Amino acid sequence: MNAEAADCIFCKIIAGEIPSTKVSEDEDTYVFMDINPGTRGHALVIPKRHTTDLTTIGPADLTSVVLKAQEIAKRALSSLPADGVNLINCCGAAAWQTVFHFHLHVVPRYAEDGLAVPWKPGQGGDAEVIAAAAEALRG
Amino acid sequence: MNAEAADCIFCKIIAGEIPSTKVSEDEDTYVFMDINPGTRGHALVIPKRHTTDLTTIGPADLTSVVLKAQEIAKRALSSLPADGVNLINCCGAAAWQTVFHFHLHVVPRYAEDGLAVPWKPGQGGDAEVIAAAAEALRG
Repeated sequence: MNAEAADCIFCKIIAGEIPSTKVSEDEDTYVFMDINPGTRGHALVIPKRHTTDLTTIGPADLTSVVLKAQEIAKRALSSLPADGVNLINCCGAAAWQTVFHFHLHVVPRYAEDGLAVPWKPGQGGDAEVIAAAAEALRG
Repeated sequence: MNAEAADCIFCKIIAGEIPSTKVSEDEDTYVFMDINPGTRGHALVIPKRHTTDLTTIGPADLTSVVLKAQEIAKRALSSLPADGVNLINCCGAAAWQTVFHFHLHVVPRYAEDGLAVPWKPGQGGDAEVIAAAAEALRG
């Protein structure tokens, strides 16, 4: 375990050193309730192997996490029941990441929950700016 | 092709019947720029096979899409360059889904972009509400 993992609050949750409201776990993933939920049923899906964020998680763990998140999302729709669900990953402090162990938010949504779309349509620029950004993303 | 796919704007984009600013495509996925970006570089990753949302996409396509989104996210960080990135899936109208062909938003983030966290911490209730929701999610 490296120094980052040794100090990681999510690693301590997985190890049972810090309490959590666990939903499920398997060999590769751990699912627990967000301690400060944005909606009723807000859960987090994390890989058991410590990894900082979307740039560092390996393909096997990313796959395990997203398939588990899909399973939890379906259950949110059928059992809470929610009217919709968002999956949200935050990579980097500039993207609202506060715990630096990769996590995928499963946010159940309700018709009257009042959450606002996080982005501002049109902020990404006009056709020329979009074309230039596409060129950058093509690598 | 079923009736839903025949009328699907994203299926028409994949087929080239509606123009898009393409970033990349492979056998299973298609990546293009959001026509109404929330930030500079806002892209969408979609499966080529029509599927409505997170509840209907198969595990192989979901895996292909998320691994492609990770690749695009890394390129956003290195090439735009962005300071962070969000991956967001919207499942259902109550969760802001407006086009009913599964898509994963890759939203590059910038230190001063001013986007607001979409959820309202604490809205999901107190410890008892959280515990009851966890029980529902356990299935």
